[in-house]
Amino acid sequence: MALHKTLYIGPFIHCKTLNDLDICPNGLIGVDEDGKISHVSRDAKEGLLPAQGGWEHAKIVRTEQHGFFFPGFIDTHIHASQYPNAGVFGNSTLLDWLNTYTFPLESSFKDLERASRIYNRVVARTLSHGTTTAAYYATVHVPATNLLADICKSRGQRAFVGRVCMDRLSPDYYQDESTESAVRDTQACIDHIKHIDPEFNLITPIITPRFAPSCTDETLAALGKLHHATGLPCQTHISENLQEISLVKSLFPTSDSYAHVYDTAGLLTPKTILAHAVHLTPAERHLIKTRDAKISHCPASNTAITSGRAKVRTMLDEGLTVGLGTDVSGGYTSSMLTETREAIFVSRHVAMDEGDEAKLSVEEALYLATRGGAKVVGLEGRIGGFEVGMEWDAQMVRLGAVGGAEEALDERAGLVEVFGEETWEEKVAKWVYTGDDRNTVAVWVKGRLVHSREGFKG
Amino acid sequence: MALHKTLYIGPFIHCKTLNDLDICPNGLIGVDEDGKISHVSRDAKEGLLPAQGGWEHAKIVRTEQHGFFFPGFIDTHIHASQYPNAGVFGNSTLLDWLNTYTFPLESSFKDLERASRIYNRVVARTLSHGTTTAAYYATVHVPATNLLADICKSRGQRAFVGRVCMDRLSPDYYQDESTESAVRDTQACIDHIKHIDPEFNLITPIITPRFAPSCTDETLAALGKLHHATGLPCQTHISENLQEISLVKSLFPTSDSYAHVYDTAGLLTPKTILAHAVHLTPAERHLIKTRDAKISHCPASNTAITSGRAKVRTMLDEGLTVGLGTDVSGGYTSSMLTETREAIFVSRHVAMDEGDEAKLSVEEALYLATRGGAKVVGLEGRIGGFEVGMEWDAQMVRLGAVGGAEEALDERAGLVEVFGEETWEEKVAKWVYTGDDRNTVAVWVKGRLVHSREGFKG
Repeated sequence: MALHKTLYIGPFIHCKTLNDLDICPNGLIGVDEDGKISHVSRDAKEGLLPAQGGWEHAKIVRTEQHGFFFPGFIDTHIHASQYPNAGVFGNSTLLDWLNTYTFPLESSFKDLERASRIYNRVVARTLSHGTTTAAYYATVHVPATNLLADICKSRGQRAFVGRVCMDRLSPDYYQDESTESAVRDTQACIDHIKHIDPEFNLITPIITPRFAPSCTDETLAALGKLHHATGLPCQTHISENLQEISLVKSLFPTSDSYAHVYDTAGLLTPKTILAHAVHLTPAERHLIKTRDAKISHCPASNTAITSGRAKVRTMLDEGLTVGLGTDVSGGYTSSMLTETREAIFVSRHVAMDEGDEAKLSVEEALYLATRGGAKVVGLEGRIGGFEVGMEWDAQMVRLGAVGGAEEALDERAGLVEVFGEETWEEKVAKWVYTGDDRNTVAVWVKGRLVHSREGFKG
Repeated sequence: MALHKTLYIGPFIHCKTLNDLDICPNGLIGVDEDGKISHVSRDAKEGLLPAQGGWEHAKIVRTEQHGFFFPGFIDTHIHASQYPNAGVFGNSTLLDWLNTYTFPLESSFKDLERASRIYNRVVARTLSHGTTTAAYYATVHVPATNLLADICKSRGQRAFVGRVCMDRLSPDYYQDESTESAVRDTQACIDHIKHIDPEFNLITPIITPRFAPSCTDETLAALGKLHHATGLPCQTHISENLQEISLVKSLFPTSDSYAHVYDTAGLLTPKTILAHAVHLTPAERHLIKTRDAKISHCPASNTAITSGRAKVRTMLDEGLTVGLGTDVSGGYTSSMLTETREAIFVSRHVAMDEGDEAKLSVEEALYLATRGGAKVVGLEGRIGGFEVGMEWDAQMVRLGAVGGAEEALDERAGLVEVFGEETWEEKVAKWVYTGDDRNTVAVWVKGRLVHSREGFKG
């Protein structure tokens, strides 16, 4: 699938650092046949288009009114299999939510036809939200997990696909039989992905112990070994909810903390994604920092199922690496734009208790959703921003313009209202606070167009 | 504008009490030529359609797949004039937000053309969100405030329209000259609305002292007198932010509390809407209860500008009357569906501190958005539910159905995903958590169709 050389012309916006949102109102980005960014111009003029090396025949894609290019979102924690339950959790909290809503749904993925319907939908939907990379939990089922990998590959979403390991405190009808079977089944999924994407260009297997309470010491240790032997990343949950933390304490009585449980098993490394991290102690944060493990902050979920308020400012100040995760379906939304908003709002609730410095700005939250996420999944050299040598994982955003007094609402334009006097910073804020998938007109991964909306001319 | 007798056929859902969401999967509601509900059937069969009194020729409106009729939302606190700033507030809090973002914008409403563009837009937009009644703050300007009333009337939105009074601690360029001019200008707006809607069938004037810090004692007292003399409702803010509360204490040193300031002025009555009420003391809540004044809870705003977490469960348990308000543009959203979600989420943050009983359920939050709001604006006998004798202020909701594995996303269906196994309660939860204006296919006020989306057959 060789691509056309393409010139993306129009404003582009990306995060340079946590606090520096780089807004370039008059940009041009050249993307080569491999989907790599080959040049970035901050002052595009028609006459200055590249005129040689084949670029004179390049395809041209332009933004629309009040539009801009923005890096694709990186969802560092999402349970693909739980997607049908998005919004369905009642007043439950983590442990009863798992038993009431989650395990019954996940167990149904032994039915491949059902898995196909749900996985196709969640990949299509997250792409439509501008999610170009996702770190997915699947279920325990090898065929369905492999199918998820196939669907990500064919729909063109960059993905980490994890077959879930869980061999205790889980329902009889839904668990691993033994440590051996958990490792064997995980290996089977790794082998499948090696077969469909040998260099893990798009799809990467990820070792996935569900969380400490649902894995025996033996299974955790065996998965730690596999993690080291294969060099593959791993993902799990940590310190989401107070009852869960008590449970971990009682299940691992000799361990110093929840984080130490993973460390003892060899599962706390620079390639580890830890989801939630709501109630970490200072000692745990220090250990995680020492090991350079990564944090997936899941504010929508932590609010929805009342897990608590993660202290993101503290984690950032201490030098931890943080990205955002929708955590569908503890999280009610599959939209990373909504998740970005939720990160800001949760930070305001932290600020009510701890002072204004806890607040995340729009710029900071967008950083977490892009560059931060890229670091969390270990792809900071390839995605998350617009720099020469990086890959074109991007979305084209379009904002609605308000016309005259009598002009009707444009049904397809979405809810962002640009009256015309806004600065670029204000337009970005309006996108974050009032935008949705309607504003994401087109989405590319590695230069390939993987989603577009009616009316997009590309 | 006589209407057709109309039969609305399909599932209908409304709140009977705070905890009782009444779901009628097979309903029929007859609405007469005056927009009043004349009969409600819980077991619609074609053969049982009313066959006399003109009903045999009635127009028929049916829900679509996974659709239902739901009462229109009642936004009990929204600043129409601040709409262009929705999403623009940075990291500010109340008092600096007013000076930085709000007063400059509001002052521009001396330009009627500008006012027309903005007010037309906010009324059209809130109707598209299913808001059938809104309690609006306008600005100090009489012509622009009268224009807002005209626009609500012509677009068919039920509204309380308030000309803002403020004669101190406001910028020179934007304030009332004196108590006399504040009262005179308020009276001019009352007179205008009496002229366009003599019986206040759709539009009602509302006396609007901005909030205690921006009104002198004399102006508060004069507006209290006007409130009593006219019998018209009044609206103001209370106890939104801690600095504001300190300011009130210093401005009214002899008053027992913020609530007492309004009580002293004769502004704390059963027809008073108090927005925010985040930090009320028990004594203030008691006073408000005694006076039977009403509370507009504004969770999106209270989070966005970090005002605090209102204790809604406590207020409800103590017998206060509570509705929801978007508080655009302290609130970032003009959608009451989003506000409903925010009410649930803020209640979870309260629950993190005070225990699970603080949580609002989906049913309770929807009650606040409809029946609760109706009580807050004093229209509980006419709107907020589906009962014989009430008026047809309603929305038709449509939820997206997930097809087979290969089926593309339907761009216009919105984000709610019904896989087919959901109970009605779960479908409602999915609507609240993942729905938006795309799910509101049609909106009626007093039986008149005031908004519909492409594809609606009505």
